[in-house]
Amino acid sequence: MENVIGNNLPERLDKIDLHIIEAMRKDGREAFAQIAEQLNVSPGMIRQRYNRLVELGYLKVVAVTNPLMMGKRTMAMIGVRTDGRRLLEVAEHLTKFDEVVYIVVVSGRYDIMIEVFCRDHEDMLKFMTEKLAKVDGVRETESFMHLKIVKEIYF
Amino acid sequence: MENVIGNNLPERLDKIDLHIIEAMRKDGREAFAQIAEQLNVSPGMIRQRYNRLVELGYLKVVAVTNPLMMGKRTMAMIGVRTDGRRLLEVAEHLTKFDEVVYIVVVSGRYDIMIEVFCRDHEDMLKFMTEKLAKVDGVRETESFMHLKIVKEIYF
Amino acid sequence: MENVIGNNLPERLDKIDLHIIEAMRKDGREAFAQIAEQLNVSPGMIRQRYNRLVELGYLKVVAVTNPLMMGKRTMAMIGVRTDGRRLLEVAEHLTKFDEVVYIVVVSGRYDIMIEVFCRDHEDMLKFMTEKLAKVDGVRETESFMHLKIVKEIYF
Amino acid sequence: MENVIGNNLPERLDKIDLHIIEAMRKDGREAFAQIAEQLNVSPGMIRQRYNRLVELGYLKVVAVTNPLMMGKRTMAMIGVRTDGRRLLEVAEHLTKFDEVVYIVVVSGRYDIMIEVFCRDHEDMLKFMTEKLAKVDGVRETESFMHLKIVKEIYF
Amino acid sequence: MENVIGNNLPERLDKIDLHIIEAMRKDGREAFAQIAEQLNVSPGMIRQRYNRLVELGYLKVVAVTNPLMMGKRTMAMIGVRTDGRRLLEVAEHLTKFDEVVYIVVVSGRYDIMIEVFCRDHEDMLKFMTEKLAKVDGVRETESFMHLKIVKEIYF
Amino acid sequence: MENVIGNNLPERLDKIDLHIIEAMRKDGREAFAQIAEQLNVSPGMIRQRYNRLVELGYLKVVAVTNPLMMGKRTMAMIGVRTDGRRLLEVAEHLTKFDEVVYIVVVSGRYDIMIEVFCRDHEDMLKFMTEKLAKVDGVRETESFMHLKIVKEIYF
Amino acid sequence: MENVIGNNLPERLDKIDLHIIEAMRKDGREAFAQIAEQLNVSPGMIRQRYNRLVELGYLKVVAVTNPLMMGKRTMAMIGVRTDGRRLLEVAEHLTKFDEVVYIVVVSGRYDIMIEVFCRDHEDMLKFMTEKLAKVDGVRETESFMHLKIVKEIYF
Amino acid sequence: MENVIGNNLPERLDKIDLHIIEAMRKDGREAFAQIAEQLNVSPGMIRQRYNRLVELGYLKVVAVTNPLMMGKRTMAMIGVRTDGRRLLEVAEHLTKFDEVVYIVVVSGRYDIMIEVFCRDHEDMLKFMTEKLAKVDGVRETESFMHLKIVKEIYF
Repeated sequence: MENVIGNNLPERLDKIDLHIIEAMRKDGREAFAQIAEQLNVSPGMIRQRYNRLVELGYLKVVAVTNPLMMGKRTMAMIGVRTDGRRLLEVAEHLTKFDEVVYIVVVSGRYDIMIEVFCRDHEDMLKFMTEKLAKVDGVRETESFMHLKIVKEIYF
Repeated sequence: MENVIGNNLPERLDKIDLHIIEAMRKDGREAFAQIAEQLNVSPGMIRQRYNRLVELGYLKVVAVTNPLMMGKRTMAMIGVRTDGRRLLEVAEHLTKFDEVVYIVVVSGRYDIMIEVFCRDHEDMLKFMTEKLAKVDGVRETESFMHLKIVKEIYF
Repeated sequence: MENVIGNNLPERLDKIDLHIIEAMRKDGREAFAQIAEQLNVSPGMIRQRYNRLVELGYLKVVAVTNPLMMGKRTMAMIGVRTDGRRLLEVAEHLTKFDEVVYIVVVSGRYDIMIEVFCRDHEDMLKFMTEKLAKVDGVRETESFMHLKIVKEIYF
Repeated sequence: MENVIGNNLPERLDKIDLHIIEAMRKDGREAFAQIAEQLNVSPGMIRQRYNRLVELGYLKVVAVTNPLMMGKRTMAMIGVRTDGRRLLEVAEHLTKFDEVVYIVVVSGRYDIMIEVFCRDHEDMLKFMTEKLAKVDGVRETESFMHLKIVKEIYF
Repeated sequence: MENVIGNNLPERLDKIDLHIIEAMRKDGREAFAQIAEQLNVSPGMIRQRYNRLVELGYLKVVAVTNPLMMGKRTMAMIGVRTDGRRLLEVAEHLTKFDEVVYIVVVSGRYDIMIEVFCRDHEDMLKFMTEKLAKVDGVRETESFMHLKIVKEIYF
Repeated sequence: MENVIGNNLPERLDKIDLHIIEAMRKDGREAFAQIAEQLNVSPGMIRQRYNRLVELGYLKVVAVTNPLMMGKRTMAMIGVRTDGRRLLEVAEHLTKFDEVVYIVVVSGRYDIMIEVFCRDHEDMLKFMTEKLAKVDGVRETESFMHLKIVKEIYF
Repeated sequence: MENVIGNNLPERLDKIDLHIIEAMRKDGREAFAQIAEQLNVSPGMIRQRYNRLVELGYLKVVAVTNPLMMGKRTMAMIGVRTDGRRLLEVAEHLTKFDEVVYIVVVSGRYDIMIEVFCRDHEDMLKFMTEKLAKVDGVRETESFMHLKIVKEIYF
Repeated sequence: MENVIGNNLPERLDKIDLHIIEAMRKDGREAFAQIAEQLNVSPGMIRQRYNRLVELGYLKVVAVTNPLMMGKRTMAMIGVRTDGRRLLEVAEHLTKFDEVVYIVVVSGRYDIMIEVFCRDHEDMLKFMTEKLAKVDGVRETESFMHLKIVKEIYF
């Protein structure tokens, strides 16, 4: 299929870049000095590399919260079928809802898959009926309630 | 349903906590001094609060990479049906695969939903046939290829 | 079900029987004297009629609890597909589980529909994987989580 | 998931409460004196406790009839898909129909699950076409005819 | 269907009735004299019994043709989903089409099942698009093409 | 598709043949003399034609009974999915069951469609679990209960 | 079924015809002289036969390109459900789109199956939302992305 | 998604190449001289270009037959679900069957989609039960019978 594709990385990442990425995946606030020491280079170089990776769009460092701790106890994936003429409009509209943390247009049985974080079942039902269903172009939805999150990598 | 539930937050978050969380959602490496200045408190207090939020499990700061830039051009959600007796075992087994960035046990048509990042279609097919399908207890899988990621909040 | 047809009402119910049934649907402990007064008959007659209705199997009076108040906050309907040769055996086996409050063999997409009351999602998942899925003859299950109970008549 | 939740029972039930509940599940008209004797307490105490349980909403005692004996020989679960904007309105509307004994809003393939008791197939078909299908907001229905009720707990 | 229940056999069938039915299932034009001889009764009695069975609606004798020989080489079962408000109207409308040899309102995934006999694929497609789909109240159809008829009892 | 196909009728039917077929569809025991009179030909010719139609396999005359009158009050179409290697074997095996009045191998979602006539729900359930499900090669079944037969042509 | 059908080939193909067809399946530009030599006949005869096969519509010789080489890296089968009244109109409309290389009206779960060749995922999404979904009469679509083409015979 | 991809065409096609491809799509045996004249270049150049296109894999010229004329009157798309561990093995095995003209591994509801050309329904059924279903690793199949081919581009 797409196995003949050329180089789609504007600039190649070297070992130092990859080490920075790995270190920061574990702790996004790891001091540059610490990383520099591990690699035996100067902290200034790490800072420079970090800034370059961020500028080129390889990486960003963000705070990730625990939904349960933040009071979100009812979560779900929802498969959405849309009027195909308004598919992208629907996806765009859904970005506005705070409950929606993930939106992806997909092939297959659904048109859009979203992930939703709500306070409780009542809040989820309110989201479904007062927000999601009211978006023009949404036709059918099928929800998959989270019973247990087993792995979550912030890629 | 669960609307009568009491306080499930071990300690209440105050305005300062929430401000820290918001600031770090935007930039996970925002300097404590900067945040302190915005709130007119001492940087030491922000550091203390940040450490407490991390220790209590409210928050972690991590590097998030752009899958496309990292050479992952074929992504999919995959609904997995399992031998129910081995559902949790399957979920556990799947955590070992690098391609799998998200695993959630769900109610409904599938037992487990996973999100998968691969280099290309060939790599995806290899994952499906040589890894996913070979996990004992996996019965059926249905894949939804990502056509476009429209929103992604690191909650 | 309808195997006793022909005439399946051993004795016709009259107005007094129906009044007793209606009164006791509202309050199962309604005093016979009270009902007798409403109908202008003797309490003894009501008692006699009540006993007859119970003996013939028209009626029973039972305590019904509020699942939420009893600590059951996660409920679901589950459609079960079975090895058809063991369908009735599976249904029989399921009667043993405390979580299962309703079991009905049905036509259509599933073989058996059950209703399940659990403490929470973790308890539900444990029921699904350690009890339901381990019953010999259970093949596939599809769960429908209760978001809101809107009407419940104890017929 | 929701396993960290605190105490959601306004007042804790003690052994006496639980004994009363169990006794009345078997026979809702069990005399207080009888229960008192079993627990070696005064009948007045049992009455008091019973009243408190009813007032707090833990319990009610109701007459339950045998649908077959009452002439209801055709029963079904019906999965209803709705216009999501009118989901709750539909659920509310359905409460008005005598045939409908149970209504629950669910996650998954259907929006609402109802249980329906009818006299016979003709009556069921009339319910489906002249009542259910005429409710504004009902889109699709899929019926599961009861072949055999195997367990029924009045929770 | 079962709406006339109570006692639904106006008069019990005896051995002679059942013998007549069996004989005529094999050859609908079997001479009464022949049947009479087998049972050692008078031909007049058989004629009388036959007329009574026909009058009471137990039996009719009809010519059944071989669809392949009659030039019908493309046959299908079609599951029809309707606007529930018009279900019976649709079923009624479909009776008018010569291609439709069987119509039954069913529970489950479809509302109506029909069996259709056409000359060839082109004729079938014409039926589907110019007749079936044009009936007001028909929403979706799913066809199952006959590959081989294995048993056909004219009950 | 198959529109270029030549003459697949071994011998062409003429007006007289078609008249005989139509007359006998209405009443399979219509006297040859009667038909002859209508067509202004000799009864002998009609008899000869009739015998030829039967011999060539165009037509047979059979007794058709009313299932309700014969005590069959629970009927269903059942879609059967099989182990494809045993599809025809399964179809063959099913011919042996008296409850099964129609068997057709089909394309699409199911492999075989059968129509089943039973005394009541209990009898149907017994058929499903003790006969149908026990046939080697049967994998899954989905039943569609007859609510109302609207048209039935004996083609 | 259709096994009694007569000769639907206007003229029978002989060994020479079949040899020409086989040779040209491998290389459509194979010289007539070459084929003639293999069969020990004159090149003129081969040319004559070839022209006849083309004129009668048995055969055409066409250039087939490699979609990957032509820059088409995202391909899919798409099942289309239509408003049945416009099924053929939709099929006709779809012929106009360059992305659509195959259109077939089918029985079963979908009404039309199409095969689509696009440059990339973005192009595919554009086709789905701006072309396919905008065709009047298209109701629902379900896409199956090509992961690997394993066999392709130009029949 | 894959929109940042570089040049994946080993050598760019120019106007002459594209003209050759277009001309040969219409008639694969178009004389080089003819094409040369249209472009006002030498026939030798066209031959050279053609040979290069074929060598690089852009193009091949093949004979395409009319399945109906070749006696293939029953065609179908078949969605195949496999034991995922043997998916590619199944795809490989299917290449051996003459009836199978197209095999593609897909995402979504099925694992493999195949297109099948058979003589008639009997031949198709034989293919399904004696070939397809007997391939180790094939689990379920769902067939979509061709009713009408509306467009067919040999890409």
